Parts: sequence; structure tokens; C-alpha cells
Amino acid sequence: MNPKLKIIPLGGAGEIGKNMTLVEYADAIVVIDAGLMFPENDMLGVDIVIPDIAYLLERRDNVRGIVITHGHEDHIGALPYILPRLNVPIYATPLTRGLIEVKLKSHKLLKDTTIHTIQTRDTIQLDPFTIETFHVSHSVPDGIGLAITTPLGTVVHSGDFKFDPSPVDGQLTDFAKLAELGGRGVLALMSDSTNSDSPGHTPSEEIVADSFARVFATAEGRIIIATFASNISRIQQVIDAAIRFNRKVIPIGRSMQDNVKMAIGLGYLRAPEGILIRADQMHKHEPRELVVVCTGGQGEPTSALTRMANHDHKQVTLTSGDTVILSATPIPGNEEMINKTLNNLFRAGALVYYHDLMDVHVSGHASREEQKLMLNLVRPKFFVPLHGEYRHLALHARLAHSLGLARENVFVVENGAVVEFDAEGNARVAHDSVPASDVLVDGLGIGDIGATVLRERHHLSEDGFLVALVTLDAHTGEIVFGPEIITHGFVYTQTSEDLIAGAKDAIVHAITGHHDTGLSAKLKEVLSQYLYKQTHRRPMIIPVVTEV
Amino acid sequence: MNPKLKIIPLGGAGEIGKNMTLVEYADAIVVIDAGLMFPENDMLGVDIVIPDIAYLLERRDNVRGIVITHGHEDHIGALPYILPRLNVPIYATPLTRGLIEVKLKSHKLLKDTTIHTIQTRDTIQLDPFTIETFHVSHSVPDGIGLAITTPLGTVVHSGDFKFDPSPVDGQLTDFAKLAELGGRGVLALMSDSTNSDSPGHTPSEEIVADSFARVFATAEGRIIIATFASNISRIQQVIDAAIRFNRKVIPIGRSMQDNVKMAIGLGYLRAPEGILIRADQMHKHEPRELVVVCTGGQGEPTSALTRMANHDHKQVTLTSGDTVILSATPIPGNEEMINKTLNNLFRAGALVYYHDLMDVHVSGHASREEQKLMLNLVRPKFFVPLHGEYRHLALHARLAHSLGLARENVFVVENGAVVEFDAEGNARVAHDSVPASDVLVDGLGIGDIGATVLRERHHLSEDGFLVALVTLDAHTGEIVFGPEIITHGFVYTQTSEDLIAGAKDAIVHAITGHHDTGLSAKLKEVLSQYLYKQTHRRPMIIPVVTEV
Repeated sequence: MNPKLKIIPLGGAGEIGKNMTLVEYADAIVVIDAGLMFPENDMLGVDIVIPDIAYLLERRDNVRGIVITHGHEDHIGALPYILPRLNVPIYATPLTRGLIEVKLKSHKLLKDTTIHTIQTRDTIQLDPFTIETFHVSHSVPDGIGLAITTPLGTVVHSGDFKFDPSPVDGQLTDFAKLAELGGRGVLALMSDSTNSDSPGHTPSEEIVADSFARVFATAEGRIIIATFASNISRIQQVIDAAIRFNRKVIPIGRSMQDNVKMAIGLGYLRAPEGILIRADQMHKHEPRELVVVCTGGQGEPTSALTRMANHDHKQVTLTSGDTVILSATPIPGNEEMINKTLNNLFRAGALVYYHDLMDVHVSGHASREEQKLMLNLVRPKFFVPLHGEYRHLALHARLAHSLGLARENVFVVENGAVVEFDAEGNARVAHDSVPASDVLVDGLGIGDIGATVLRERHHLSEDGFLVALVTLDAHTGEIVFGPEIITHGFVYTQTSEDLIAGAKDAIVHAITGHHDTGLSAKLKEVLSQYLYKQTHRRPMIIPVVTEV
Repeated sequence: MNPKLKIIPLGGAGEIGKNMTLVEYADAIVVIDAGLMFPENDMLGVDIVIPDIAYLLERRDNVRGIVITHGHEDHIGALPYILPRLNVPIYATPLTRGLIEVKLKSHKLLKDTTIHTIQTRDTIQLDPFTIETFHVSHSVPDGIGLAITTPLGTVVHSGDFKFDPSPVDGQLTDFAKLAELGGRGVLALMSDSTNSDSPGHTPSEEIVADSFARVFATAEGRIIIATFASNISRIQQVIDAAIRFNRKVIPIGRSMQDNVKMAIGLGYLRAPEGILIRADQMHKHEPRELVVVCTGGQGEPTSALTRMANHDHKQVTLTSGDTVILSATPIPGNEEMINKTLNNLFRAGALVYYHDLMDVHVSGHASREEQKLMLNLVRPKFFVPLHGEYRHLALHARLAHSLGLARENVFVVENGAVVEFDAEGNARVAHDSVPASDVLVDGLGIGDIGATVLRERHHLSEDGFLVALVTLDAHTGEIVFGPEIITHGFVYTQTSEDLIAGAKDAIVHAITGHHDTGLSAKLKEVLSQYLYKQTHRRPMIIPVVTEV
């Protein structure tokens, strides 16, 4: 049987093929991206979510390398967790490499990692794959898409893209290359579905520059702008506005400072001599001569902006003359945190601009008309929408149908699904899928906690727990210690004396006259009934019966 | 000293003056609204949040009554929790009364409650207050605003309003009355701030009818529309579209059915004979002759739509021919739940329309230009923006400044603040505020849990707990039982045997050679250090040392 070409999306936290995608043929696998996701609200206590690489670990000798499309967390953030278990070469454009190096350095993994620098319009040979790169515009410079020529045809991966007609760095998405690929013939397109519920075109980054200019023109005091530390384009826009309006720029926070330094060093950030100053130099200038750029656009609890909003930042104390710009759109699930930060910024007296009020942020992803353009340029035989939740993929698929792609040539799949292409030019979803669970990172544990522990945490978060301790005489069965009750997260114990006393009575009553085994189960049942009746709550109940 | 007139906003869960506002003069208090809020994501295990009525309970003889502006949950939902402790008369318009009665009936409180029906353009005398009502358009019919004339002047409360030029029920916000009040002279305006970060005008409900028509015109199978059960106007639009496109309407779910029946009975819902059918009659019709209306627009876990999406609804099984309309905008904090429901609807093969894709919902609240109109019509001396988070109030205040209202005449306050007006025509925020904490309802408990229990639940939700049991000989100090470890929500115990064994060793080691008191504290410290070093997690640690 001839080998098949396989496309396998991986990832986590509800998004499909966003953080990692595999292209496999015979004994060769090329990995596209290795990113992380932030946990969903019901993944209690989890720090981050990374893709499941079990399939790769079983085939580690087949993995030719990891090609990174751009330097955002959801495309590079899993590298520190994956590389120690799968040390393969990384391929990345210069700025993306810079962002990866900043990250690997902080995890002390830099010297053990092989990174190859690639350029746009480059060709890499990872046998049997020939990978051509092409530039795509996104909210970080130096992003690429990939055309992977395999023995069974060429598959194109869009990366995270939009067709911004006036991007900050002047680099357009590579129409010409996409058209050329389309002309050459493309077997399958994997394309960014993030905004497939946004009609029209995504506004250009230019609109953000206009908004910044309006704010800078009228702000009487200091300006503070929050964005992702990896959003180099946005940071450039801050610097450009600062030059125009005669302000100094102060990058605040470790990740922001590291990225700014690296991007200037590589020539991806243009900052004239003297425009950047350190926080300890702020006092030498009037507030109206300053603009602070920092993290916190998602209301992250430990970010610089959130600490400023809570009067808990060492270097920046907010005053009523300050103007704050939140240059971000909420990632679903972060809205409440962001709103709390906004409220506290207003409480501190700052004038605050955010996305509802003004175009201080634009998406980095193609809207529906741009998704159509990508499909129309590449003209693939098969289409595998990726990057998005299931609904985005489904909507992207419908869009492709509306352009004439046959329903059976479009594959809306879940993570771990294997889309197979054979030598006869047919494609289908394979019967068996590969492991693709959310790998949860919690403290030092990678993948050690799963559904069981999350269910326990959920239970505890709702109603707490109650431990009932009692020690019996092994011979007489009489109570020699207890019953004692330990409870947390259930009721406010200082005002619940009667309830606790009642629970103890229920225990004593249950023990009296109980002669067979299974006393623990009985105590659990009795306590559960008693407590539910009294409170309509269901704490986790743990009876501990010991005998001496 | 002459009595002062006081305005006191109350409420919960981050919104100010949304669920309840007090107007007090001398020994008389009139209460405006008694609503509930859904808990914020960090209020773990909490069912609902209601206003703190401690201030009212201390002055129960002064409370003249509760005037309800409209029948939404956030304005009537706290009544079942408040009335048993503060049984005062309620004043409501006919539909609002109907919605209250449905609610009180299910809580078995109807017969003990006095409700007075009022009309728009009505005048109620609650000495020393003369209360005039005026119609406001909102997303439920029969909403009113209030003009309360007091010995010190007239204060106007906008209710939840917008200036919809083509509302579903044809009833416009009462420009004439507002202008008349403005001409007469208004001491203070309290106005809805919900959308003060939305520029322009809120689109008319008419736009939703247009969207419904587009969907109805092309849908080949069954249509399912999710909205709040109290959104009588939206239900009317569903019925209107069904008439036009020859479909039968099936209200699904208890609250939806109760409200539809009540609203038809009162004449607020126009449904021709035979248009409404029961779920058990669906099989007699083709799918293209049916439209289901149900709850679930916020992705609520127990709602009809969520159960349909999860293949867990008795009467409606989704198929690939179904079209679903989510006629709602996410309440902040609900986005993830809604997105999960959307994803599952798409997985079931349904064609789904939601707010990002099409105008299938419009806000019920005034945007900035309408807020200006309210201020310009009423022309108050003082302005107290209410209904919204702090940021909304602050933005509404800036809007008022931009219209010429002096900064010192606008009061942006927190819940519990007392805005005082004196006989000399001055106003200020009183030094002392009144109790206004979030009253949390959890099961049968109303207000019994607070910061301590929530902190414990948060701790448990992040890292679980670990109980360490050990029994010592009271004379020798030697271990006679244990150490035993009970842990949940911390690690997956089946794969953590080494960790648990290490914890036991640490306990034994700590006990050996320990001769003074404070063994529990020492065990807590030792375990905490050991577990953090091994896992970088911090479970709640509870040592239980007993002696026999």
C-alpha cells in the first residue's frame, strides 16, 4: 500500500489546530508551530494548556523539525515544555527566532536547542518535504505561511494572517506567491479561521495609528498603553506616536523590555536614539512628555497595568491626569478581569480608552472577505479550515462552499483527527484519530492532572469539603475520640455552630447500633442527607473512622 | 436641622444602583426596584447576588413601598428573598406585575404580597413623595421611569431605557413628559449608564425583525430561537415572523411558557388563534412549518438550548436541517459558556446565527447620543449616573460634563454611598455610607457566606487540600496510628504514590524529636515546604494530630 499524506491538527482549550499541526508522509513528520493556550475558566488551578505530543514521542525519529510561523505565545509558548522531551531543530524567521530565544533563555533551554534562521520566500528541504515560505501580515512582524510540497502534492498553511493594505512594517501578505501557488496547483489549504464570524475586512493597523494620534494630541498628562509584549507592531506605533508628539517611551516590565531590546537589535523596531528611557528617569520629565508601554491588555492579574490599577505598582502610581489606552480585544473568558481592571483605572481617576470606545486595537486575523481572497488565490482542491473553535471552522467551511468548493472536499475536524490524502487524489478523515487531549500544566506538573482532579477542584470550588473524624474502640465499638468536624469552603463556621453540632449528632446516631462493615459509607450518606437538607449544598464529605 | 433628601444606590456584583435605589426624606423611604445579579466568576459556588437591605430592615416602618420600573430579573429577581424579611407593598405596571406574579407564585409568596397596579402617566402618592410615571422603551414592554417630587424638589429616575424610534410594541419613550419635567425643573437625574461606552444610537428593535425575516425566508428546516423568557418583545417578533412565513410557534421550557401565557392574557403579546402549539404537536408538522422559542441565550447550563446542544433535551433533538438563532448579547463572564454552546450547536450540524454574524439582537439600553438626549430633555441641576459598572458611570459623568453640567454637580459613587441634597439647593456625598455588600445566595443560605468562605473555595479550586492524620500515644509521644494522607483536587493520587510516601516521611521526621507544643503548626510548615518543592502547588494543608 502506498503511503498516505496526513494532516493532523493538535492544540488545546477549545481551539483546533491552532497551537500545532502535523504534516506526515511515510516516515517523515514536519511539525508546524508549538504554542500554548491559556486555560478555560473551568480548568481550575491550571497555569497553561499545551498540545499533546504523544504521537510525536512515539515517532520521535521521524520528526524532521518544528517550523514556526510567527512569534506569538499560541505558536511558540509550548516550546519550553516540549523541547526537553523532543529535542528537534526549530526553523524560524529572524524576529520569531528572537522571540523564541528570549523565552528559551528564561527557561535555561537556549544552549541545548538548535534553531535555524529562515527568511520569507525561502526554501527549506526537510526530506521528503520541500517547504517554501511566504510573508503574511499579522499583528507581529515576520510572520510566514508555508507551502509544503510532498510526494502527493503541495499543501499550503496560511499561518495567522490578514490582508492588511497598510501594515505597520509595510510588508504585505505575499499575494504574488499565493497566486503562483494557486497556478501551480495546490492539493490542500489549511487556513486561519479565527475571524470567520466577522463579516467584511479586518481594519488596517493604520486605524490604530489614527486613534493613537487623536489621544496623543489631546492628552494633558502621562499616557500609559497596554498591549501584549510580543505585539512588536503595536509597540512601533507607540514609538511613532511618541516621536510625533514629543514624548519619551518607557517600556515597563521584564518581557516588554526584553522584547523591545531584542527587536531593536534585529532591526524590527525603529527607535531613534534617546526616545526610550528607563522608569527611573521618568521624574526628569513632565508627565505630558511621557508614554509608558506595558503588559496587561487582558487584565492579567500579575501584569503591570493591573498592578497599576490596584495601586500596587512600584514605578507607576496612577493619578487623575493620566490617560490609559487598553490596546487589545478581550480573549473570550477574560472579559471580567479586563472590566475589573478598567473599573479600577477609572476609580484612580484616569481617562481610559478601550476597544468599545475607540479603535485602539484591530484584530491580526483575516475577516470573511479576506478568507475568501485566500481561498480564491490558492484555489486548493481540498480545504481544511484550522485555527479557531469548532464554530469558526464550520463557518469557514460554509464560506468555502459558497465559493464553489464541494462539500466533500472540505474537512471540518477536531484536534487529533487525521485527514488522509492518497495517491489517487482522494481525501478522507481516517477512522482512527491520534491522542489530542488538553495537556494541562500546573506548577511543575505537565499532564499529570486531568478530568478527575479538575472534577474534584470543581466540586470543592462550589461547596467545599467536610471531614468527619471519629475513633472507635476496636473491641467495644464505642467512640473513644470525636466526632470531630473539619470543614472549609462550605459554611462560615463561626456562625454555623448549630449545623456542626447537628452533624455530630447525626454521626453519633449513625454509629450507635451500627454493627456491620461499611460504616464510612453510611456516615457519608447520613451526613450528605443531613447537610443537604439544612443548606441545599453538597460539600465533598470524607468520613475518617479509625479504630484503636 | 432640616431633613435632607437622600439618594442611595444599592445592588451587587460590580454594578452600581442597578438592582435597587433608595430615595429617602425624613422618615420616608421609597425603594426603586429589587433585582438580582448573577455571580461573577470568582464568586465560587454562589447562585445569585442580591442587594443588601440591612439599611431598610433597620428602618422598616419608614419604607413606603417598592416601585418596580420593569419586569427583568435584575429589577424584580430579589423580591422572593426580600419580601419574607420586608413585606411592603409593591407598585408595578400590568405586565411587570404579571412577571412578578409568575415569580412569586413559584416561590409560594404570592398570597402574602400586596401589589398595586400602576399605569404609565400615573401619579402615586406615597407621602411625602408624589411619584409620576412615564413610559420608556426597553427590551421588555411596559417599562417606566419615575419622577419623584419631594419637599426639596423633583428627582427623576430613568429606569432602563432607550429612545427606540420603532419599538416592537409601538410605545415610544415619553419625550413629552421628560420635556415637561425639564421645563418644570428637576433637582437630580438618575440615568441608565449601561451603554455609556457605546457611541451613537442603539439600533432599533426593527433591525432584529429584518434579520429574522432574512433567516425565515431561507431556512429550509426547523428554526430554534433562544432569548430570555422575560424578553416579551423578542417573543413578539418571533410570533410576527412566524405569521408572515407560515410557521407554528412552540414555546419550550416552563418560564417561557408561563410568561407567554401571562403576556397573552394581559394583552402584551399578540398571538392569533392556532399560531402557538405544544411540543407534543410538533410531529404533526413539517420542520419548515415550525419555530421553537426557548431560553439559553446566555449558554446557561440548564437552559433548553444548552441541553439541545448537548443532545440532552427531551422534546427537541437537533438535526443538520435546523437553523438556530441566538438572540442575545453575552453578559460579561458568560462568553465561554455561550461559545461552548455555539460550538456544540455547530457540531450537531445546525446552521447558527449569533450576534457577531448578524443583527439578531439589539441592546435594550441607550447609547451615548440617547444618554445625551435624556440629559438635554430633563436638564437636571444634579446628575447621578446609575446602572453600570464604575467605568460606565465615569464615562456617563464625562458625557454630562461635555454637555455643560458642572463637575461638582455630578456624582459618580459606589453602592451604599449617600448623595444628600439640602434645603439650600446644595448636594454632596455624605461622609458615612450605608451597608451595601454583595449578599450572596448559596442554596438555602442568604448572606451567610462571604469573603472567608469564598477565599477558601478559591484556594481549594486552585490546588485542592491535603489532610494529614496522625495519632500519638499521649504518654510516650510515639505514633500509634498513621500518618495517613487524604487529598483531593491536588494531584492525581493514583500516579502520585512517591509524593504521598515522601509526605508521610516528612511527617514522621518532623514528629521524631519534636517535644514541645505546636506540632500541628510544625507539620503544616514542613508539609507545605515539601509539597511546594515537589509540585510548585500550594494545597490547603490540614494536620490532625490526636492523642490516645
